[in-house]
Amino acid sequence: MSKPLNIGMIGYGFMGRTHTNGYKRVPDFFPELKYKPVLKAACARDKEKIQAFADQWGYESIETDWKALIARKDIDAIDICTPNNLHKEIAIAAAKAGKMILCEKPLAMNAAEGEEMCKAVEEAKVPNTVWYNYRRIPAVTFAKNIIDSGRLGRIFHYRANFLQDWTINADLPQGGNALWRLDAAAAGSGVTGDLLAHCIDTAIWLNGSISDVTAMTETFIKERVHTATGQKQKVTIDDACAFLCHFENGSLGLFESTRYARGHKALYTFEINGENMSLRWDLHDLHRLEMFDYGDEGPFRAWKSIHVTDAGGDHPYMNKWWVPGLQIGYEHSFVHQVADFLKSLEEGKPCGPTFRDALETQKVCDAVLQSAKEHVWKNV
Amino acid sequence: MSKPLNIGMIGYGFMGRTHTNGYKRVPDFFPELKYKPVLKAACARDKEKIQAFADQWGYESIETDWKALIARKDIDAIDICTPNNLHKEIAIAAAKAGKMILCEKPLAMNAAEGEEMCKAVEEAKVPNTVWYNYRRIPAVTFAKNIIDSGRLGRIFHYRANFLQDWTINADLPQGGNALWRLDAAAAGSGVTGDLLAHCIDTAIWLNGSISDVTAMTETFIKERVHTATGQKQKVTIDDACAFLCHFENGSLGLFESTRYARGHKALYTFEINGENMSLRWDLHDLHRLEMFDYGDEGPFRAWKSIHVTDAGGDHPYMNKWWVPGLQIGYEHSFVHQVADFLKSLEEGKPCGPTFRDALETQKVCDAVLQSAKEHVWKNV
Amino acid sequence: MSKPLNIGMIGYGFMGRTHTNGYKRVPDFFPELKYKPVLKAACARDKEKIQAFADQWGYESIETDWKALIARKDIDAIDICTPNNLHKEIAIAAAKAGKMILCEKPLAMNAAEGEEMCKAVEEAKVPNTVWYNYRRIPAVTFAKNIIDSGRLGRIFHYRANFLQDWTINADLPQGGNALWRLDAAAAGSGVTGDLLAHCIDTAIWLNGSISDVTAMTETFIKERVHTATGQKQKVTIDDACAFLCHFENGSLGLFESTRYARGHKALYTFEINGENMSLRWDLHDLHRLEMFDYGDEGPFRAWKSIHVTDAGGDHPYMNKWWVPGLQIGYEHSFVHQVADFLKSLEEGKPCGPTFRDALETQKVCDAVLQSAKEHVWKNV
Amino acid sequence: MSKPLNIGMIGYGFMGRTHTNGYKRVPDFFPELKYKPVLKAACARDKEKIQAFADQWGYESIETDWKALIARKDIDAIDICTPNNLHKEIAIAAAKAGKMILCEKPLAMNAAEGEEMCKAVEEAKVPNTVWYNYRRIPAVTFAKNIIDSGRLGRIFHYRANFLQDWTINADLPQGGNALWRLDAAAAGSGVTGDLLAHCIDTAIWLNGSISDVTAMTETFIKERVHTATGQKQKVTIDDACAFLCHFENGSLGLFESTRYARGHKALYTFEINGENMSLRWDLHDLHRLEMFDYGDEGPFRAWKSIHVTDAGGDHPYMNKWWVPGLQIGYEHSFVHQVADFLKSLEEGKPCGPTFRDALETQKVCDAVLQSAKEHVWKNV
Repeated sequence: MSKPLNIGMIGYGFMGRTHTNGYKRVPDFFPELKYKPVLKAACARDKEKIQAFADQWGYESIETDWKALIARKDIDAIDICTPNNLHKEIAIAAAKAGKMILCEKPLAMNAAEGEEMCKAVEEAKVPNTVWYNYRRIPAVTFAKNIIDSGRLGRIFHYRANFLQDWTINADLPQGGNALWRLDAAAAGSGVTGDLLAHCIDTAIWLNGSISDVTAMTETFIKERVHTATGQKQKVTIDDACAFLCHFENGSLGLFESTRYARGHKALYTFEINGENMSLRWDLHDLHRLEMFDYGDEGPFRAWKSIHVTDAGGDHPYMNKWWVPGLQIGYEHSFVHQVADFLKSLEEGKPCGPTFRDALETQKVCDAVLQSAKEHVWKNV
Repeated sequence: MSKPLNIGMIGYGFMGRTHTNGYKRVPDFFPELKYKPVLKAACARDKEKIQAFADQWGYESIETDWKALIARKDIDAIDICTPNNLHKEIAIAAAKAGKMILCEKPLAMNAAEGEEMCKAVEEAKVPNTVWYNYRRIPAVTFAKNIIDSGRLGRIFHYRANFLQDWTINADLPQGGNALWRLDAAAAGSGVTGDLLAHCIDTAIWLNGSISDVTAMTETFIKERVHTATGQKQKVTIDDACAFLCHFENGSLGLFESTRYARGHKALYTFEINGENMSLRWDLHDLHRLEMFDYGDEGPFRAWKSIHVTDAGGDHPYMNKWWVPGLQIGYEHSFVHQVADFLKSLEEGKPCGPTFRDALETQKVCDAVLQSAKEHVWKNV
Repeated sequence: MSKPLNIGMIGYGFMGRTHTNGYKRVPDFFPELKYKPVLKAACARDKEKIQAFADQWGYESIETDWKALIARKDIDAIDICTPNNLHKEIAIAAAKAGKMILCEKPLAMNAAEGEEMCKAVEEAKVPNTVWYNYRRIPAVTFAKNIIDSGRLGRIFHYRANFLQDWTINADLPQGGNALWRLDAAAAGSGVTGDLLAHCIDTAIWLNGSISDVTAMTETFIKERVHTATGQKQKVTIDDACAFLCHFENGSLGLFESTRYARGHKALYTFEINGENMSLRWDLHDLHRLEMFDYGDEGPFRAWKSIHVTDAGGDHPYMNKWWVPGLQIGYEHSFVHQVADFLKSLEEGKPCGPTFRDALETQKVCDAVLQSAKEHVWKNV
Repeated sequence: MSKPLNIGMIGYGFMGRTHTNGYKRVPDFFPELKYKPVLKAACARDKEKIQAFADQWGYESIETDWKALIARKDIDAIDICTPNNLHKEIAIAAAKAGKMILCEKPLAMNAAEGEEMCKAVEEAKVPNTVWYNYRRIPAVTFAKNIIDSGRLGRIFHYRANFLQDWTINADLPQGGNALWRLDAAAAGSGVTGDLLAHCIDTAIWLNGSISDVTAMTETFIKERVHTATGQKQKVTIDDACAFLCHFENGSLGLFESTRYARGHKALYTFEINGENMSLRWDLHDLHRLEMFDYGDEGPFRAWKSIHVTDAGGDHPYMNKWWVPGLQIGYEHSFVHQVADFLKSLEEGKPCGPTFRDALETQKVCDAVLQSAKEHVWKNV
């Protein structure tokens, strides 16, 4: 009794691949779900490239104009994998056309755009979600469950960082298909929207709202050749960003992101310190959750590294995969998000993070960038 | 112009799932391959169960008699995922029917059986491979490439273990569909064939042949209820096995496996010590390879932990997946084995480990079990 | 031809013990030094306690009035291990009396006091040093040597934290001999002077001066019983402090300290990210230095964990101790500081950090506390 | 009311230094002990060298003939730090002279010698101990206490190794003062007596007696220049040794030692797997004990790394040192052995490992070497 859910994918880059893989894997591993994604159409301006993408992944058809895609009656859900500067227009049009929307993060170029998008999906009453995929890494979901159980007690500290090193080379250009993330006109910001947004989404999910921030940003390489013009142009993104903050629960936050931390490929880490327990996680070993439990017997208290791979128990999602000790990877977080989205449709519930949830992250990002610009504390 | 390769799968357990997932993922991530696996038929005696399996994974048809499956003209390759005691009969029949064979490890109940199977596939000249999947974990393949480059110099030591803890509970029964691995009649042996065989396959691949061994085995829980009879029966498998050995290259080997090492879910580790370099790997963090390079500048010499996730470079298979820093998991080793098998068909070359390669592992296992029984050194 | 250096120790607490052990161990392990410390006198107001301390450690005599100690002709050097609020008065008196001074960190209650102390020792031209002992952990000194060699290239980031958890219990009192660190009247500040000061000293030493800061502090437990009065009193120290900063070399800094990070006993860590190399260190495994060297061959690039225990080579101080692989501990940093102080006397050179060096750290602490109070960026 | 214990030290090498440091540190950190070691005399044939050693460490006098030392009335205890081939003669003479004996490990060249030594001290009724110092690393003692509490339940496995790499260089000579460990005439054996003996001593202490063994040894570099003759001579020691064994409690053992494991300076590790708990330790991070406790709540079960540095609690010896989080090092194990020896004198109890205890280790070593020679299992 499965029901097809016809997907219209816009974009074919890195995220186009991870989402598509998510749609394809779900029926194999979550056979109990009523909805089955169908790869109905893939869309991009470059006909040759989108055709190749569609062929590789098995999309039934292609479009070269996203408006045409949205207009199609046989599409149930629009997946937005474009550069950030197109999110708003596409999302609003899709909402008006009554399509469900699965939008790549960050939600928008800024909170003002995000607010418009939220209104659009809420008025249209269409299911919507934003791909903050790290929530669905089993170890991260496990952390959420532990925190929600109240075991940590009063929270004192939360810290997170997302460290990369891939833009240290000054010869790397900016802009174009491959490197639009280095161009503020397409991306909105640099590491703040690309990397810190992930940290903020997880933080709010785990530890509640952020009240105020003080931030600094830096652009280490001031000029890069722009792919579009072939000319050296000013770099407009933030290469690095760090901020201090207060959470509404009274705990202190510390966040940092950069693409200039030599030696770190994609080191997203977070740590939360509660009165009774602390938790720590690291994307480079994403299948592990570190825990310190003050409830342990005195001399045996220590950090433990939980291998979150138990199929039979309380390790989220892991009963869907293999046997204890055998790890899954990065891509599975997207499979899980698809599964949860499909389940939310069955249950008629929202699938977090919704556009509205993602807007809160956007507001923090805006406050961070504004604080860095004005050198003052900013309320969110 | 892809060519279908029609798969006939026998079995639907843990390995049935990992292999099937391998067949399904390959076209998405290795689109350049000429052959595309088609899930033509799944086979098992239990009609209801095999139908459910086929429905979940998308097999086009089912069979309840493996002989009928082998007889089908529309099947190109037989995948054997049965308990070990059926490998020989099925493989020989499949070979005679001219089918390619992908056989789950260990090859057979013992070397004598394995020898027959080798002869059958060699006479029939059918492509054949055995699923010693760990060879295709990128970090392990990377180790192989480094060793083959000669960088390690003279090899002094090789050690490996495979430690689990899932059978400590004395109330666990033996036998039946789920627990045939605890019944020597179905499995041939205990940890030796199930776990040590993996260690031995990798060891021979990386470090060459093993000459002689001295071993000990132990059965800690002497009796368990047998699922088939409901009665307590003698446990006939080895719960633990360890052996010392000489490799033909003059290096010393040390191997251990057990299902009674509390705290270890599936801790397969190996380490190789060469004159100039050492390497170490661990299944619990399978995306990492540890390396010590004596060629490093003196005060900087140290073990490094290579995060084998570089898409652009020399990290095997990783250009097929995501971006640097984002790990893949256990299941990908099977995807890689399918891909390599398909490529070997294109190239008309064997895909290691072939039946003949796996026979060498079987011979070591036999020598180990014999040495343990007789309390003497045994030549392989 | 050794020359005695007569030590007058003021205080007998934790630091009194670490310094005294330093004086006693030096001749055994640094026999080449001309000066040999002699434990001439120990001083504290409590006669019984200081006598017990002198007996245990072998001080030749005691005093109960530090002015009397300073007045003694047979004392060459005064070691100040009192609470922070006494540093200034004692140091200035000692300088006027022509004594060398080894002062426990932080230098003073604030920069104004520190400035007076600097002037006093500089006018008196007496050798002086401040016990920022972590500089002399071999792995930290090794980091300094590597950085000074220029191998890191342009520096982008520096981050450090000092995390503890020993004051989470709300029943812990403040003040008195044991807990003066929780009383701002005796300590000047909380974690800023006690813990962050260490991080700042190392940071300036490794990465140069800090220009400006934005900080936040928090006092989680607002009232504690004061040991002196037996009454609940407002807690005046900072329980936690974090700040962002710019270094003069253009790199970004991130610092955090707290006594509310459940699970961390004394987790002082720092990391520095340069264009070509990154280094990382952690007090919980103080004998290791982690290094990432971009100069390594591409696929082999990784973080390595250098076991800084080589006796024969370039691992600082380690030729004085045991054989490779055998670690030394925390206390040895004080032995090294004594040895370096004695050597500086032989050579007629200052022994860093001098009072003047430590004043710079004090100025950063002042700016941090002021920034946190006023919620603005502060220049140092 | 302290009582002097006059030490006569024979030898001035690496162990002469560690023992002497032990004698000197004890009164500072264990002030409650009645006996205080006094460095009465140091002895070696080379007058100049022993004088330099005595001067550096503060021995009151020297001797160049160990018989003269033993004859001195003012000596209470003889510390034997000579090459192994002198242990027996000295120990027996010292016992006959009524001296206490602290003998460096291994006890003797072989069990026959050891038996004679045991008889001598037992007849003379003199206190005696052997410096298997690793028992007194706090994390190791902690492991002992946990095991003795019965928490582990039935033991299934014990494994240990001691891996070094310092003799890989074929140009390293054998023999002489510095390299007598490479000469079987002086050392008795190679890694078996030098390194495996440590592993065996700890194993027996923690897990009880060993029943039988099957072993292999190897000499990788067959000839080295002998320091005494300047000629290339056959190497007579074992460069590497590994063995399997049964413990009397029914658990299985696996041991390995080598000086050809590139990358390992002094990697002594052990692991014990019990029904309910497992423990693991590693000399390269000697202040940590790893523990897996099956009694933990299901989803939270994991290996934890206990930082064995708590001053206030049940971490053995640590109340004598600093504060939680601050590690001690290798040398402290000798301080602890001296302290325990002195305490045993006060209490009139033996201080393990006694000569008799060490003889059991010697017997295992003998069985190992014999098994390796004959290629058969050997009872101990």
